[in-house]
Amino acid sequence: MKLLSYLTDRGPRIAAMRDKDVIDLHDADPSLPHCPKAFLAAGAEAIAQAEKAIESARSITSPITLLPPVPSPEKMLCIGLNYADHARETNATPPPCPVLFNKLPSALLPHEGTVLLPKVSRQVDYEAELVLVIGRGGRYIAESDALGHVAAYCCGNDVSARDWQRNKPGGQWMAGKSFDTFAPLGPWMITADEIPDPGKLHIQLRLNGQVMQDSNTAELIFPVAHLVSYISQVCTLKPGDLIFTGTPGGVGMGRNPEVYLKPGDVTEIEIEQIGILRNRFAAEA
Amino acid sequence: MKLLSYLTDRGPRIAAMRDKDVIDLHDADPSLPHCPKAFLAAGAEAIAQAEKAIESARSITSPITLLPPVPSPEKMLCIGLNYADHARETNATPPPCPVLFNKLPSALLPHEGTVLLPKVSRQVDYEAELVLVIGRGGRYIAESDALGHVAAYCCGNDVSARDWQRNKPGGQWMAGKSFDTFAPLGPWMITADEIPDPGKLHIQLRLNGQVMQDSNTAELIFPVAHLVSYISQVCTLKPGDLIFTGTPGGVGMGRNPEVYLKPGDVTEIEIEQIGILRNRFAAEA
Repeated sequence: MKLLSYLTDRGPRIAAMRDKDVIDLHDADPSLPHCPKAFLAAGAEAIAQAEKAIESARSITSPITLLPPVPSPEKMLCIGLNYADHARETNATPPPCPVLFNKLPSALLPHEGTVLLPKVSRQVDYEAELVLVIGRGGRYIAESDALGHVAAYCCGNDVSARDWQRNKPGGQWMAGKSFDTFAPLGPWMITADEIPDPGKLHIQLRLNGQVMQDSNTAELIFPVAHLVSYISQVCTLKPGDLIFTGTPGGVGMGRNPEVYLKPGDVTEIEIEQIGILRNRFAAEA
Repeated sequence: MKLLSYLTDRGPRIAAMRDKDVIDLHDADPSLPHCPKAFLAAGAEAIAQAEKAIESARSITSPITLLPPVPSPEKMLCIGLNYADHARETNATPPPCPVLFNKLPSALLPHEGTVLLPKVSRQVDYEAELVLVIGRGGRYIAESDALGHVAAYCCGNDVSARDWQRNKPGGQWMAGKSFDTFAPLGPWMITADEIPDPGKLHIQLRLNGQVMQDSNTAELIFPVAHLVSYISQVCTLKPGDLIFTGTPGGVGMGRNPEVYLKPGDVTEIEIEQIGILRNRFAAEA
């Protein structure tokens, strides 16, 4: 099932797609939660119930304001250098264990939202990533149970101001990756029942139609289940938490000459079985 | 005014202290918000109104469950190496601009809460810090306006698992500083009207009664107003956001021999004009 969040006067609501129709899940079945995080927490049973409910429910006829699939996750964790070719292009060695960092959830942006190029950066780069959406939370999750904690998958762009990521003292990546609008996510979430193996998905990023990144999640150094288990040693995972799994080779800073984003550029991130996340870049006013 | 947040069946509520009495602000004056973030957003007028309201209001007579002063901030930013003596003890040079990193808000813990020493770390350290609570939000805040965006101040402990901060690939600090319970905050917030100059506050950390850190916010390399302005270049600050301003010299990893926290240890962080934040450490079950 394709799930999305949209904005109403009553706050963010969870909806599903039936072909091209958008159906509010709580309106379709009032016993389902209306809040995206509460729905994700309700697990496989709620998903099965929602699938049934949308079969005959009325769709929303007025235009909707799309939100990021999870509009306000408690946390958004990211993995660095998780594809060997990307580690090479940044002159890093493939790490012996996952490199954990994070983006601020305030950077989230929906599909078709405009990424604002900050006045204070001249090196904004793209990073196509498979993103996990946590359903059932937990701490010290065993790797063998980890996929059962993933409710859904989507495409993410780990937009990165390289001059803030690399040229500032202390070597910390968060700021360069957390400017407002630097976390496009979407176009929707595909529930995990439709993606039994997240470790063999074609992933591609196109910049103005030109293929810049082209890989497969089979190339992940640390696979999805390991990441969930590893992160859960540090913090309790909660419903709606997001995990950006890392980007393959082909980013702008790894090219010769380096390629950075400019106003009018459009990125499309396509992941097999998920869809296409499209965003335009514009100068900050 | 001393503000605190506490837990009720209806969610977190904002309250104030009148001597030793705790007074729910919305109960004292129903035109005041009940939600901590909404109250912080309401600015100096709401604070003046609350001060009036608590003069004669009835206090809460049953025991309360204290929460961190801001229970669920959108973001919690931190500054590294912001006291010259701490930079020296970690063999770092004082940075030319603020070192930005963050802790996950899921790590927050109230005054008198128990910090859990994770099974996966053997080097848990303390860091006494002055913490800013943002009231009015904003982006590109001028340094001359910055103090007007700070609603309140409190004490924070930037608890840090040094083995996760230093010995993992990628050099990122977030994970080592974001284990569950690693962000004690409190004991309350002191509203900014009572602290006209946050740049001359005595700050001290005692471990089991012994003074380990003893400095003054006059020693901050980048002062409070500069930090607010600098961070607002990256992200829109929102009501309730927290900024940990950095720790002075004397942390456990800078000592010879190194000192790390063990079950039963108690830290007390005292900042002039604010109060004492006390937390006990225990082994994770």
